[in-house]
Amino acid sequence: MIYLDNAATSFPKPETVYASMEKCIRTYCANPGRGSHSMSVKSSLAVNNTRERIAELINVENSLNICFTKNATEALNIAVSGLLREGDHVITTCMEHNSVLRPLKILEKYKGIKLTVIDGDGLGRIDPFIIKRHITKKTRLIACTLSSNVNGIIMPFGEIGRTAQNNGILFLLDASQGLGSIEVDMKKTYASMVAFPGHKGLLGPQGTGGLYIAADIRLNPLMSGGTGSKSEYLLQPELLPDKFESGTLNTPGIVGLGAGVEFIEKTGLNAIRTKKNELVRRLYDGLSQNRNIKLYSPEKVEENSGIVSFNVKGADSSEICTLLDGKYSIECRSGLHCAPLAHKHFGTGKTGMVRLSVGYFNSLSEIDNTISAINRIIYEVNKN
Amino acid sequence: MIYLDNAATSFPKPETVYASMEKCIRTYCANPGRGSHSMSVKSSLAVNNTRERIAELINVENSLNICFTKNATEALNIAVSGLLREGDHVITTCMEHNSVLRPLKILEKYKGIKLTVIDGDGLGRIDPFIIKRHITKKTRLIACTLSSNVNGIIMPFGEIGRTAQNNGILFLLDASQGLGSIEVDMKKTYASMVAFPGHKGLLGPQGTGGLYIAADIRLNPLMSGGTGSKSEYLLQPELLPDKFESGTLNTPGIVGLGAGVEFIEKTGLNAIRTKKNELVRRLYDGLSQNRNIKLYSPEKVEENSGIVSFNVKGADSSEICTLLDGKYSIECRSGLHCAPLAHKHFGTGKTGMVRLSVGYFNSLSEIDNTISAINRIIYEVNKN
Repeated sequence: MIYLDNAATSFPKPETVYASMEKCIRTYCANPGRGSHSMSVKSSLAVNNTRERIAELINVENSLNICFTKNATEALNIAVSGLLREGDHVITTCMEHNSVLRPLKILEKYKGIKLTVIDGDGLGRIDPFIIKRHITKKTRLIACTLSSNVNGIIMPFGEIGRTAQNNGILFLLDASQGLGSIEVDMKKTYASMVAFPGHKGLLGPQGTGGLYIAADIRLNPLMSGGTGSKSEYLLQPELLPDKFESGTLNTPGIVGLGAGVEFIEKTGLNAIRTKKNELVRRLYDGLSQNRNIKLYSPEKVEENSGIVSFNVKGADSSEICTLLDGKYSIECRSGLHCAPLAHKHFGTGKTGMVRLSVGYFNSLSEIDNTISAINRIIYEVNKN
Repeated sequence: MIYLDNAATSFPKPETVYASMEKCIRTYCANPGRGSHSMSVKSSLAVNNTRERIAELINVENSLNICFTKNATEALNIAVSGLLREGDHVITTCMEHNSVLRPLKILEKYKGIKLTVIDGDGLGRIDPFIIKRHITKKTRLIACTLSSNVNGIIMPFGEIGRTAQNNGILFLLDASQGLGSIEVDMKKTYASMVAFPGHKGLLGPQGTGGLYIAADIRLNPLMSGGTGSKSEYLLQPELLPDKFESGTLNTPGIVGLGAGVEFIEKTGLNAIRTKKNELVRRLYDGLSQNRNIKLYSPEKVEENSGIVSFNVKGADSSEICTLLDGKYSIECRSGLHCAPLAHKHFGTGKTGMVRLSVGYFNSLSEIDNTISAINRIIYEVNKN
């Protein structure tokens, strides 16, 4: 089996992720922050260890500004619904995932926010100058992805953050694609909020994610409930991260996420990026030899977070993925990738795209086998 | 170590929970419902297997009416925020957890709902006739816990459900305490919604929970985002369970939860209940011998979901728990247990209570050792 669906969820995980989760759940997994007994304290410490590792990874001073969520979608919903009020104007892009677009569209339809959706260039890249042109006095937020989950194009998120800051606007970075192999540094990026999943580039398990919230940002919580703190209050406490962490946390998941981030620290962001670049280059070069293939991803690896998307002339993307899976055990994803406006942008709203997304654990020989398999499928399809 | 904090999270889990999670995360953990490749399909099937097991446990015909959440708190927030509108009247009880009280209090403060909080009897038990007396034309919802997380008293939830149904009112059952050892049958209970955690009585891991939503109930979603279905829509699809399951699910967690429910099926609800009753009876009888102890839990095991709460005259609950943990490695919980109105009801708002909560895996000898330890602590405290 060759797994090339790392943009959906990374697989496999580092061995330490499995081992740390197993140890947690078998030996000390009490309710973190809910009791003062030894096991509960050990669980709390383990959760906060992961919090600190993530703070270090994105260069945040106070790890308490990082709140754990079940996935990036929850983090994005907290950010968008917690911040925006009637009359606010938001700028976003056609390259966003539905986890950004749907919360914004719902607020536009039911809560009276105004929404501007910026188009990208040929590769879907967003120009910060175009964002700037759309800023009005009412603009409260710019929401943009770190890189596209459809074709991998990396956005100029540093410049977009600067544009936001220079205009007194908040910037929400959706770091779902790229965190863990691309440097995201809060001292350089000027993001007010960063939403991230734990189970993609950070190499943790599913059921984890988080939201960084800058100290000066006040959001309404999406949920309320038991926080283990200030139990006597009948309203939600303001304290971070408790305000956004109601109910029992996913302790074993967060422990696994900590091991994932530790693996990234030890391996080095640069080494991970270099490896992924090598895989992407080989894949792109291989596929570009076949004139029946139309590629949608950036050719330059420094502009690409790890995705090679394509279509085969005359074939639906799902047909190709089904053959890759059924005949060659190559796991990748077809369709719209929950990003309908990006596909509209590329003119692939009907066919979708075949998306191959690489991870640090893929090998060059897997890439070579994938290229051969695709070439053989195209040969068979054209023969019939 | 003796673990008596099962009301916070159950520990240990059945061996099959650990093994199934390990197998999932190591061998097939792709993104469920997001791709058509074999691993993704296998993950989807595993998630839906758990969904069906839970549907069977609570006797629900269509498992798609069960939506997975990260914990019971998320499920309760979806139920409360998704249903209630300005002007609605809600009846709840003083025995609720903050995961019910806080969402309702926030709606009362900011969204114009009316809230009636019913008091319980000496043990905190809610009388359905008192609920009935408070029903008005505006009453939309009755929200009540299956049993108290403070003292274990089991509520007459079947009768409360009937009262709701007879008056055309919806009933939200918070099944956080008791599901997995107390029969909850949707054909008998008349609940419109049931919120449950996966990591307590269902013996699954943290990071799991769910909400059963009856077919005729329409709730607004708390979050929106990628659902893997109808990706071309820029608003949230209405389809269940997708409407409430935006973003990547916690596949290994849900797989573990399925193994937990399977363990319950195989062992039998009655056998689990009988074992817990035996432990509670021994604990209650043992502690009631010491005249320095004030007990707050129901003496009759058929009225108790598995908790023995008490205070020691002249001592704060946290002092006792700290000694139990530090000197005897007995893990239990002091304080307010996120249920401030229940403690107000019992007059323990300042001292809290020592809560011992048993699980299926506790033994009688652990209970005997706990009783001895508590007696010795009281002897030492009184000596000083």
